[in-house]
Amino acid sequence: MARFSAQELFSPPIAKLNASAIREICKLISRPQLMSLAGGWPDPQTFPVEQITAIVSDVLRENAALALQYTSSEGLPELRQWLCEWMKRRDGIACGPEQVLVTHGSAQGMELVAKALLSPGDVAIVGLPTYFGGPGACRSFGAELVGVPVDDNGMDTDALEATLGRLREVGRRAKLVYVIPDFQNPTGATMPVERRKRLVELASEYDLVVVEDSPYRDLCYDGSPPPPVKSFDGEGRVMYLRSFSKIFCPGFRLGLAVGDETLVRKMVIARQFEDCCTAAFGQYVLFEFCKRGLLDRQIESNIGFYRQKRDILLDALGRYFPRTVSWNRPSGGFFVWVRLREGLDAEELLRKSVSNDVAFVAGRPFFIDGSGSNTMRLSFAQEAPERMTEAVKRLSDLLW
Amino acid sequence: MARFSAQELFSPPIAKLNASAIREICKLISRPQLMSLAGGWPDPQTFPVEQITAIVSDVLRENAALALQYTSSEGLPELRQWLCEWMKRRDGIACGPEQVLVTHGSAQGMELVAKALLSPGDVAIVGLPTYFGGPGACRSFGAELVGVPVDDNGMDTDALEATLGRLREVGRRAKLVYVIPDFQNPTGATMPVERRKRLVELASEYDLVVVEDSPYRDLCYDGSPPPPVKSFDGEGRVMYLRSFSKIFCPGFRLGLAVGDETLVRKMVIARQFEDCCTAAFGQYVLFEFCKRGLLDRQIESNIGFYRQKRDILLDALGRYFPRTVSWNRPSGGFFVWVRLREGLDAEELLRKSVSNDVAFVAGRPFFIDGSGSNTMRLSFAQEAPERMTEAVKRLSDLLW
Repeated sequence: MARFSAQELFSPPIAKLNASAIREICKLISRPQLMSLAGGWPDPQTFPVEQITAIVSDVLRENAALALQYTSSEGLPELRQWLCEWMKRRDGIACGPEQVLVTHGSAQGMELVAKALLSPGDVAIVGLPTYFGGPGACRSFGAELVGVPVDDNGMDTDALEATLGRLREVGRRAKLVYVIPDFQNPTGATMPVERRKRLVELASEYDLVVVEDSPYRDLCYDGSPPPPVKSFDGEGRVMYLRSFSKIFCPGFRLGLAVGDETLVRKMVIARQFEDCCTAAFGQYVLFEFCKRGLLDRQIESNIGFYRQKRDILLDALGRYFPRTVSWNRPSGGFFVWVRLREGLDAEELLRKSVSNDVAFVAGRPFFIDGSGSNTMRLSFAQEAPERMTEAVKRLSDLLW
Repeated sequence: MARFSAQELFSPPIAKLNASAIREICKLISRPQLMSLAGGWPDPQTFPVEQITAIVSDVLRENAALALQYTSSEGLPELRQWLCEWMKRRDGIACGPEQVLVTHGSAQGMELVAKALLSPGDVAIVGLPTYFGGPGACRSFGAELVGVPVDDNGMDTDALEATLGRLREVGRRAKLVYVIPDFQNPTGATMPVERRKRLVELASEYDLVVVEDSPYRDLCYDGSPPPPVKSFDGEGRVMYLRSFSKIFCPGFRLGLAVGDETLVRKMVIARQFEDCCTAAFGQYVLFEFCKRGLLDRQIESNIGFYRQKRDILLDALGRYFPRTVSWNRPSGGFFVWVRLREGLDAEELLRKSVSNDVAFVAGRPFFIDGSGSNTMRLSFAQEAPERMTEAVKRLSDLLW
């Protein structure tokens, strides 16, 4: 059908939208011989299969009429209540179920905030670099993106302030800032408390909504992360996105959006015309998993598992990578951020590397300004230890 | 947080978006004494609990690493392939997996088409009346809605042609027409073959995309429905939406969007920044259900079940409702459409009726022009037979 070949027939934001570099790379990964340092998919070894098997059978025996039915757009009330108490204990966040929306992954939380707030021409601020889920969702609604540097301590709040000031001077207003304060994707950087507090102050001063995307928060391998940005939020300006993909499993697509009641209500209305509700079955399974006290235990077990994998990757990098390459030591999450020497192109490297059966994610797609061509993201989440080491060895051969 | 109270801080389409009358009524239904002729939720008695229990246990034993993992944004390749063959056999539609997207319910298919095509000011055409999922999704992207009458034979294609002509004269172009050709929600009307063919011709003549939403198609109680509009589509102008909520169960939120490859590809990219993918677990369960030959059997069983319930509702209406009230005899789906005498207000009736523990859906929200105040939709899907008859009796007391 010829008409769809013409880009102008699509809605302008969607015509311009590019595919997610990560989602596209996931298709490659199905080649079994490929050793992947690419995706942020969790290692299936961590999936609590035995517990889920028991729970699923109980849910179907005792509660099939509800678990196989539609459910409310907000999510299961009892699950939302439980999670409020969990977040109070774990994150120091005081919220009621009316401020909580169960979503199909934290991605949907991001999409719904963007849908509720952004129109063509609005400005949204994102990190340089940042995971492209946030920017992609903002772009879907025609927002203009402005980048703010991310350093070893996450988003630079001084630079953010300067950017907000400049925008104000030219009469433009940013509506939203997207941050990943804990073990950022892709840099692994964590924002210290001071920056978190400053971010909330700036949000108030410049009338912003902060989207705090924190899928890796619980996977902290050294000590514990600072309190969430949300915990410093006295004005309901922070929309806190949580994910169960990394601490339970991704197969039910379960996430959480926690924020101001009026904004959450708008997101609920928007989702009534999007997917109606989060699938009930997964919510009942997660609720049982929570009620049986398995969630915190699972987190502990995952921390041990991934800490070891992180150390294996860092060890391999130290052993095989040349001195011209630098990288960080993330204290949580899934990613090590690698900087090649100036002039080297990670995308070219990726092409060579894939034909050597090693995949990673080149850094450039994480920069909305097209910079970062000499950076790459290595994930220690998915690959088996021996293969991870072998992958680094093969990769390093291309770097000397 | 004061700022969200001010409607103007939201994106304009979302600020104007009203909650779904059906989704809101679902909250009422949790009162156990309430007899509901309201929701289009399927009767849990039809859920294939035993088969799902067996399948789920097999999936978790044999395939947990994939079924609990993320999956591709398009949906499981093997499921899409199977469904292509199924639709070829069942619907006379020839399509390949690259034209098929597995969604979180058919609602998400609608949302993704709207997202891909519509911008503020674009025109979308919907039935008068129509299920509000379609209009709501179009409104979410700022489209302007124009209504075309629906009569006993579904959307009136002569009226549609006249409307398209008028729009063209004033220099406006409709981009999309939303139809439910089989046992329409709310009227129960089915479009005959001639209208289906005419719709495709008009789509070509006026350069439209037709969204064919057909969640009830398989539940045909008298004979079989005409071929889908999609089967007459030689130009890839029809996006065909299917749902598994009524022929399997709603608890996994599984739907299908089938259309032009380029449009489907754009929808896939849009969904990468929406919910990334349909939850893998439900897709594996549905695939097993299909492979084991259970889907067609389930459909047959549901047809017998709901045919009986339809007859019980129609019988009760004939017995208890006064002659001043008229209604149709739907040959499929879940709904009977009732017209009260001119001047009676179904919304007022609903308020009285709910305090009598009987719920239904007033007709007005199905009309984008605010007409239809003397109409109502009665569903025979959810309520037990005795309670359904009792509900009609109580309702009729308010009608004399």
